[in-house]
Amino acid sequence: MIRYGLIENLSEVLKKAETLLEALPYLQRFAGSKVVVKVGGEILASPELTENFARSVILLRSTGIKVVVCHGGGPQISAMMSKSGIKPKFINGQRVTCKTTLEVLMTTMLGHIAPYLTSKINQILPCAISISGTSSNMITAQPKATELGYVGVVDSIKVGPILQLLNSGYLPIITPLGIDTAGNFYNINGDSCAAALAKGLNAEKLILLSNIEGIYENYPDKKTLISEIDLASLLKLKTKGSFSEGMIPKIESVCDALLNGVSSAHILDGREPYSLLLEIFTASGVGTMIFP
Amino acid sequence: MIRYGLIENLSEVLKKAETLLEALPYLQRFAGSKVVVKVGGEILASPELTENFARSVILLRSTGIKVVVCHGGGPQISAMMSKSGIKPKFINGQRVTCKTTLEVLMTTMLGHIAPYLTSKINQILPCAISISGTSSNMITAQPKATELGYVGVVDSIKVGPILQLLNSGYLPIITPLGIDTAGNFYNINGDSCAAALAKGLNAEKLILLSNIEGIYENYPDKKTLISEIDLASLLKLKTKGSFSEGMIPKIESVCDALLNGVSSAHILDGREPYSLLLEIFTASGVGTMIFP
Amino acid sequence: MIRYGLIENLSEVLKKAETLLEALPYLQRFAGSKVVVKVGGEILASPELTENFARSVILLRSTGIKVVVCHGGGPQISAMMSKSGIKPKFINGQRVTCKTTLEVLMTTMLGHIAPYLTSKINQILPCAISISGTSSNMITAQPKATELGYVGVVDSIKVGPILQLLNSGYLPIITPLGIDTAGNFYNINGDSCAAALAKGLNAEKLILLSNIEGIYENYPDKKTLISEIDLASLLKLKTKGSFSEGMIPKIESVCDALLNGVSSAHILDGREPYSLLLEIFTASGVGTMIFP
Amino acid sequence: MIRYGLIENLSEVLKKAETLLEALPYLQRFAGSKVVVKVGGEILASPELTENFARSVILLRSTGIKVVVCHGGGPQISAMMSKSGIKPKFINGQRVTCKTTLEVLMTTMLGHIAPYLTSKINQILPCAISISGTSSNMITAQPKATELGYVGVVDSIKVGPILQLLNSGYLPIITPLGIDTAGNFYNINGDSCAAALAKGLNAEKLILLSNIEGIYENYPDKKTLISEIDLASLLKLKTKGSFSEGMIPKIESVCDALLNGVSSAHILDGREPYSLLLEIFTASGVGTMIFP
Amino acid sequence: MIRYGLIENLSEVLKKAETLLEALPYLQRFAGSKVVVKVGGEILASPELTENFARSVILLRSTGIKVVVCHGGGPQISAMMSKSGIKPKFINGQRVTCKTTLEVLMTTMLGHIAPYLTSKINQILPCAISISGTSSNMITAQPKATELGYVGVVDSIKVGPILQLLNSGYLPIITPLGIDTAGNFYNINGDSCAAALAKGLNAEKLILLSNIEGIYENYPDKKTLISEIDLASLLKLKTKGSFSEGMIPKIESVCDALLNGVSSAHILDGREPYSLLLEIFTASGVGTMIFP
Amino acid sequence: MIRYGLIENLSEVLKKAETLLEALPYLQRFAGSKVVVKVGGEILASPELTENFARSVILLRSTGIKVVVCHGGGPQISAMMSKSGIKPKFINGQRVTCKTTLEVLMTTMLGHIAPYLTSKINQILPCAISISGTSSNMITAQPKATELGYVGVVDSIKVGPILQLLNSGYLPIITPLGIDTAGNFYNINGDSCAAALAKGLNAEKLILLSNIEGIYENYPDKKTLISEIDLASLLKLKTKGSFSEGMIPKIESVCDALLNGVSSAHILDGREPYSLLLEIFTASGVGTMIFP
Repeated sequence: MIRYGLIENLSEVLKKAETLLEALPYLQRFAGSKVVVKVGGEILASPELTENFARSVILLRSTGIKVVVCHGGGPQISAMMSKSGIKPKFINGQRVTCKTTLEVLMTTMLGHIAPYLTSKINQILPCAISISGTSSNMITAQPKATELGYVGVVDSIKVGPILQLLNSGYLPIITPLGIDTAGNFYNINGDSCAAALAKGLNAEKLILLSNIEGIYENYPDKKTLISEIDLASLLKLKTKGSFSEGMIPKIESVCDALLNGVSSAHILDGREPYSLLLEIFTASGVGTMIFP
Repeated sequence: MIRYGLIENLSEVLKKAETLLEALPYLQRFAGSKVVVKVGGEILASPELTENFARSVILLRSTGIKVVVCHGGGPQISAMMSKSGIKPKFINGQRVTCKTTLEVLMTTMLGHIAPYLTSKINQILPCAISISGTSSNMITAQPKATELGYVGVVDSIKVGPILQLLNSGYLPIITPLGIDTAGNFYNINGDSCAAALAKGLNAEKLILLSNIEGIYENYPDKKTLISEIDLASLLKLKTKGSFSEGMIPKIESVCDALLNGVSSAHILDGREPYSLLLEIFTASGVGTMIFP
Repeated sequence: MIRYGLIENLSEVLKKAETLLEALPYLQRFAGSKVVVKVGGEILASPELTENFARSVILLRSTGIKVVVCHGGGPQISAMMSKSGIKPKFINGQRVTCKTTLEVLMTTMLGHIAPYLTSKINQILPCAISISGTSSNMITAQPKATELGYVGVVDSIKVGPILQLLNSGYLPIITPLGIDTAGNFYNINGDSCAAALAKGLNAEKLILLSNIEGIYENYPDKKTLISEIDLASLLKLKTKGSFSEGMIPKIESVCDALLNGVSSAHILDGREPYSLLLEIFTASGVGTMIFP
Repeated sequence: MIRYGLIENLSEVLKKAETLLEALPYLQRFAGSKVVVKVGGEILASPELTENFARSVILLRSTGIKVVVCHGGGPQISAMMSKSGIKPKFINGQRVTCKTTLEVLMTTMLGHIAPYLTSKINQILPCAISISGTSSNMITAQPKATELGYVGVVDSIKVGPILQLLNSGYLPIITPLGIDTAGNFYNINGDSCAAALAKGLNAEKLILLSNIEGIYENYPDKKTLISEIDLASLLKLKTKGSFSEGMIPKIESVCDALLNGVSSAHILDGREPYSLLLEIFTASGVGTMIFP
Repeated sequence: MIRYGLIENLSEVLKKAETLLEALPYLQRFAGSKVVVKVGGEILASPELTENFARSVILLRSTGIKVVVCHGGGPQISAMMSKSGIKPKFINGQRVTCKTTLEVLMTTMLGHIAPYLTSKINQILPCAISISGTSSNMITAQPKATELGYVGVVDSIKVGPILQLLNSGYLPIITPLGIDTAGNFYNINGDSCAAALAKGLNAEKLILLSNIEGIYENYPDKKTLISEIDLASLLKLKTKGSFSEGMIPKIESVCDALLNGVSSAHILDGREPYSLLLEIFTASGVGTMIFP
Repeated sequence: MIRYGLIENLSEVLKKAETLLEALPYLQRFAGSKVVVKVGGEILASPELTENFARSVILLRSTGIKVVVCHGGGPQISAMMSKSGIKPKFINGQRVTCKTTLEVLMTTMLGHIAPYLTSKINQILPCAISISGTSSNMITAQPKATELGYVGVVDSIKVGPILQLLNSGYLPIITPLGIDTAGNFYNINGDSCAAALAKGLNAEKLILLSNIEGIYENYPDKKTLISEIDLASLLKLKTKGSFSEGMIPKIESVCDALLNGVSSAHILDGREPYSLLLEIFTASGVGTMIFP
C-alpha cells in the first residue's frame, strides 16, 4: 500500500498547530488537577448539546484533567411531573419538594438523566460511572426550609469514593441528592452540590454550564456581559442588586467555592458548542470567569 | 461508676459461645473471598425483610467477606406499570420489554429500589454504593429474542469498577442493566446477572435469595426439599422435567456459575429472616446448596 | 448426590442468628484493632482450658482483630524448681529470682510453655509464632529491687517485630523476659509485660485471663463482684485497701495501660470456657471491665 | 476588577475547538505510550527550529506521551573539525572516525549540542535530562568496519535508566554514543540509535525529523512524495533502487524498528515548523508514515 | 579541638586498603543474597568463639548479605541429660530421643542456647530474633526411624516468617525442631535443617561451621584436606567409603542443598576465629568449598 | 575436580580478618547514608589514580553507601585552552570565564572528563551515569562577579533526579555547571558545587579529594598537618590567616556543608591510593576530618 500526498492547504494546517500550541500552557497548568463541571438540565435536553458536552469532557480527561460531572434536570422533572398530573411549585426559584415530587425527581434523575448522560460519554470512551450523592452517605443533608419540604442543603461531604474512581481513571457523574441520618432523601440544588464537590475535592476549577451567556452587569445589555471578575467586585454587584433571582444561586455557589480554596469558577453558555474547551484551553475564553 | 453483676443464665451464655465457635471454620474459610448475593424484588417489597437483609450483608462484610449485591424488582415494576396504565406481558416468565416498559423499569430500579436498598444498608454502616450495570459499559448485552424487545443477555462483563470499590471497603449494589455498542439499554434477568458477576469476579459463592424455600424434587412435597445436591444430579432432575418454569432460570444461572469456577451456589428463602447468615455461618444451613 | 432436609428446630436456629447479629456491632468496632491477652500459667496447666483458649484467640483473629498473647507460667516454674530441689521464695508475691531460678524459669517458659501453647494454636490455624521478649532486645529491663535478684521492670519496649508479624497475619506469643545492655536476662511479671505491650502497640484492649472471677469489692462476697468500673473508682477502692496482695499487680497493670491510651482493660476468669469470646462479642460480658 | 467582553470572531474560535477535538482520538490512543524522536543536526543548527522543536516535544509530553529524544550533530561536528583543521572524510555516507575525530565528535555532541538542546527545552519546562548512550554502559557497541574507525553498531541496549527517568516525569535526551568492554567509545548513527532505543523501549512510534520532506518514490518529483506506505512496499522500492545513499540508513532504521514491535515510523521535515505536532495530532499528517 | 597526625606505618595501612579491595568482588557478588549458617554446639560452648561468630555474622549482614543462623547444641544437651541422670544413647551418630530426652533437648535448645546466642549478637546490633522451627508449623517433620523415637526428618518447610523478618532487616536464629499434624515435636539434625532452610530460601550459600577443619580425603592426613571439590567428585569419594560416620550427615546435607539450587556449600572450622569472614570475603578461603 | 590446600600464612590471613572487622562499625554507621565526593582534575589527569578512585567508589557503593561524585577539570581545561591559543586568566584563584572559555570548559568537562571518568567506573560495575548540573535546571546559578564573566554561584539546587538515580542503584557523576532563567550556562567551582549537593542531599559526608595532604596549620610544616578539627577551631585559624588562597574555597565549602547539616567533611590526598577507603573504613584515617 502506498499513498502519495502533499499538504495542500498549508496555512490551514499551520493554524491547527498554533491552536494546539496555544493549548500548551493550559495543558501544563491543569494536568492532574481536578475540575468539577455542573451541566444543566436544559443542555441535557438537547441530544446534540449532550453529544458536544460528552466529547468535551472526554477531551478534558484525555489531557490529564480529573473531571467530575454533576448534572441537573429541572425541565425533565417538570415535564415528568405534569405527565403525572402534578403541578410544579417554586418558592424563590426553589422547587417545593413534597414526598411525591421527590419520588418523581429521584426516578427522573437517577433512572433517566444520569444513565443516558453516562452512556453518551461511554460511547466515546467507557469511563463514566454514575453515582447518587446518597451512595455510601457521601452527601449528607438537612432540610433548607420547612415550606420547601425535601429540599436539602449540604451538611457534609465525603469524597472518598469519588477520589477512588478518579484515581483509577473513571469519570464520576454525580446526581445531586443528599441523605440524613434518618434515611430521608433530599433534593439538592445542582450548582451548590457542584460547589460542595469542588470544595471537598480541592478542585482547581468549578464550571457551571447552563443556558446563559455568563454574568451580565445589566441584563440583557450585551455590552455588560462580564468576561473576568474578582470575587470582591462580584459581591459588590450582588449587594447592589444587579442579579436576577435565577442567577443568585449560581453566584452563591461560585462564592462558596472560591472562598474555600477553588482557584477559579466559570459560568459558561452550554448552548455554545465547545464553550467548555475554549474556556479551558484557549486564551480567548467564553463566558464569565471569577477568581478569588 | 461501679456496676456489680453475676452471669445469671450461664447455660444460655454458653450456647452463645458455642454458636460463635460454630461459625469459626466458616469465618476462616470465607475471609477475603467474594460472595455475590441476588436479592429478589419480593424480599425488598417488605421493609422488615429488607432491614434483615441489610443487617445480614453488613455482618458478612464485617467478617471479611467481600459482598456484592445484585437486586431485582419485579413486583415493583409491575405495580409502577399498572399505575401508568401499562399491562405487563410475559413470555416464558420473561417480561416483554418495549421502550415504555424499559423506561418504567429503569426509573423504578435505578430511581427507587437501588437507592432505597442502598440507604437501608448505609444506615447500619455507610459503605454501600449503587451502580448501574451500564456504568462504564460494565455489562454489555445483546437482545435475547426479537419478541422480548429490550430483554438482554450478558455479552461481556468488566468487573474493574466493582473490584476497585470492593478493595476499598465499599459494598457495591448492582442494578441488572446492560448496554450495547449503539447505546441501547437492556433489561437483564437478575439471577443471570448475578451469575455473570460471580463468574467475572471469581466469587466463592453465588446466593439467590427469593420467596421460595429452595429446590424441591417434587414440588410442593416438603419432604422432597433438597438440602444439598451436586451439579450432575441437578442436571439429571432438570432433564427429567422436575422443575417449574419459574425455577428454571435460577437453575440455569446456578449451572452457569458452577461450570465457571464458582465453588458453590445457594438458593435460599429470603422470607426466613437471617437465612443468609445461617447458610453461611452454621452447619445446619437452610435452603438448597449446589456444588460442582 | 442429593440430601433432603428440613430445618427441624427453627427456634434454636433463630437463636444462632441472633447471637451472630448480637456480635455485629463488636465485630465492626474491633475489626483491625489490637488486643493484648495475658494468659496465666494456671490456665495453661489444664490441657482443656488451653484448648478453649486456643480456639478463642483464633476466633478473635478470624474476625480481623490483631491478637498478641503474653503467657505466664508460675505453677510450672515452681514445679520444675521443686523437681530440681530448689525451694521457691516470694517477697510480696514476687518470685525471688537467683541465677539458678532464672535458668529454670527461662528453660520452662521458652522451652516448654511457649512451644506447647504455640503448637496448640497452630493445630487449629498455623499462624502463631513464639518470640522471647529479649529477641532483638525488644524489651529492655532493669532490676526491680536488689533482694529480688533477676526480677526486672520494663525499661523500654520496641514493638517493631511484633507489628511486622501482626501485619503479615501472624499471631505473636510473647514470653515475658527482658534484657539489659550488659546482656543479663530478667524475669518480668506477665501482667505488667502485657500492659507494656498494650501501651507500646496502642492496643484497644488489655485482657488479663487468670483463675479469678474478676475484681471483688469485698472478697469473697459474690454480690460484690464488679462488672464494670471506671479508673477513678478503682483507684479509690485501691486506696481504701480493698484488694489482696495477689490482685494488686493486676490492678497496677490495668492502670498503667488505661492511663496510656488503651481503651479498656478486662480481668476475666480463664477457667470459664470462652469467657474471652463472651466478653468481647456479647452484651452480657463476664468478669470485670475497667475503662478510663 | 471587571473585564467585559464578547467573543468577536466566533467562526475562528469554533475552528480552534474543532482542532482540539480533532486531536482527541490521537490523545486517547497515544496517552502513556512511548515515542522516540530523532532530531537531526541540521534542525538544531537553527535556533528558531530548535525552539519550535522544544515547544513541540513539551506539548507531546503534556498530553501524557513519554518522549525520548535522540539528537544528531553532523553539521556542527564538521564545522568544529574544519575549525581544528581536520578534513571530514565519508565512506558511503558514514563519517570515518579516527581517534581525533572521535574526540571532536564527543566534545561537540556532549559538550555543546546536548546541553544547548536540553536547556532550550528546560526553559519551557525543566524536565529534560541529557545522558550519553555510554552512561552505565547503556549502549554497547562494536566496530562497524575497520576502515570506518570508531564508527560503531549497537550491540546491546539497556533501557533501565531511561525508563526510570521517563516514569519519574523526566524527558531523556540521548547522545548516540556506544562503548565496548574495553572502554572504547563509538560514534553511532543517530537514526539507528533512535531505532534501537524504540525497540528497547517498546515504543509506539519512531520519528525521524530531518531536512527532507519524507520518502519520494522518484526524487525530486513532488508528486511521488509518499504519505503512507507499508513495510513490504517500502522494501520492494528499496530493492528496485529507488532511494539515494542518504536515505538508505533512515530506511534501514525504520525497518529495524517496525520489524521489532514498533507500531509506526515517521520521516518528517523538521524544517516545517510543528510537523511533529501535525503528524501526531491531526488527520492530515505531514511527511511519510511507515507501518508494518 | 585540633588533633595533628601523620600516618606512620604506611605499608601497614596500604595492606588494609588491599584487604578491603580484595573483598570488593565478593561484596558485589553476594550483596542481597541469602546465606544459611549452621553453627555447631561445640562452637557455642566457648564464649570467645561465640563472640567471634556473633561479630562475623553482623559483618556479613552489614555488607547486605541476608544471614539466617541455625544452631546446634549437642554437648550442652548431653551435659544437661547427665545432670538429670539420663544417659545419652546414640544409633549411627543420631541421638535416640525418648519423651524425656526431647523435653531436655527442647528446654536446653529453646530456653538456653538460642536466647544466649541471640543476645550475644544483639549486644553488637539488636537485630537477632530467635524462632523455633515449630512456630507457625514452619518445619513439619515425621519420625526418622522407630528406634530413634522423636528424631524427625523434614517433611515440608514454609519460609514465610523467615523471609518476612529478613526483608525487615532482622537476623533469624532458627532452632532445629519440627512438628507433625498431631502436634508432636521432633529433634531434627541441625545440618539437615540448615540444608532444608537453604533450599527453601533459595540461598546462595550453605555454611556448616563445626569443630573440624573441612573434608579430608584420608583423615587425618593434613595434606589430603580438600580446599575445593565438585559434587560429582565428592559423591565418588563417598561411595569409596572415604568418610567417617560423623562426616556423613554433613556430606548428605551439602548434597541435598547443592542438588536443589544452592550455589555453594562450605564446611569450615568454627574454632578458627573468623573462618566465616575469610571464606566469604577473601580469595584464600579456609575449609572446604563444595560446588555443584 | 579436587583442590587440596592448607592455609599457609595464618598470621597474614588473620590480619585480613582483623581489617574486615575494623571496618564493621563504619559499615554499620554509614550503610544507606549519602556521601558526596569531589574529585579534582589533577587526580583525573592520572590514569592510575583514576583507576584507584573508580575502584574505591565502587567499594563504597558495594557496602550500601549512596555515592555521588562531582568532578573537577582545571588542568585539562587549561591545556585545552592553550591548545586553542587562549591564555587562562585567574582572579583570586577563580578562572575568568568569557564566552569562549565557557565553551572550552563545557566541551572539556562534559565531552571529555565526565564520559571518561564514567566509563572507567562502569568497567568495574556499569552503574555510573554522568549528568550535567544543568540537566532539568537542577543547579540554577547567578554570576559571582562581573569581572569573572560566566563564573556562577549556586542559587538553588533540585536533587530530584539524583535521588531518583541513587535509589535505583545508579552512581551519579555530576559536572559542576549551573544555568540561569535566561538559559545562560555558568562555570561553578567544583568544591562549592559538591558542598551544595551535600547540603541538598542531606549527605552524611562531604569528601574533597585533591592533590594536597589535608589542612596544615603552618604550611608546609608536616608536623602541623591537622588530622581532626572542629568547625570553631577551623574558623579561628581562618581568621588568623593561616590558609593559602588555594585552600580558602575548600575551607568555605566545608563550612557551608557543616553548617547545613552534613555530619563531617574530609580533605584528603587523592594522590595516596585508597585514601578514600582508609578514611572511611579504618580507625587510622588519612587527611583532615572536620566536624561541626
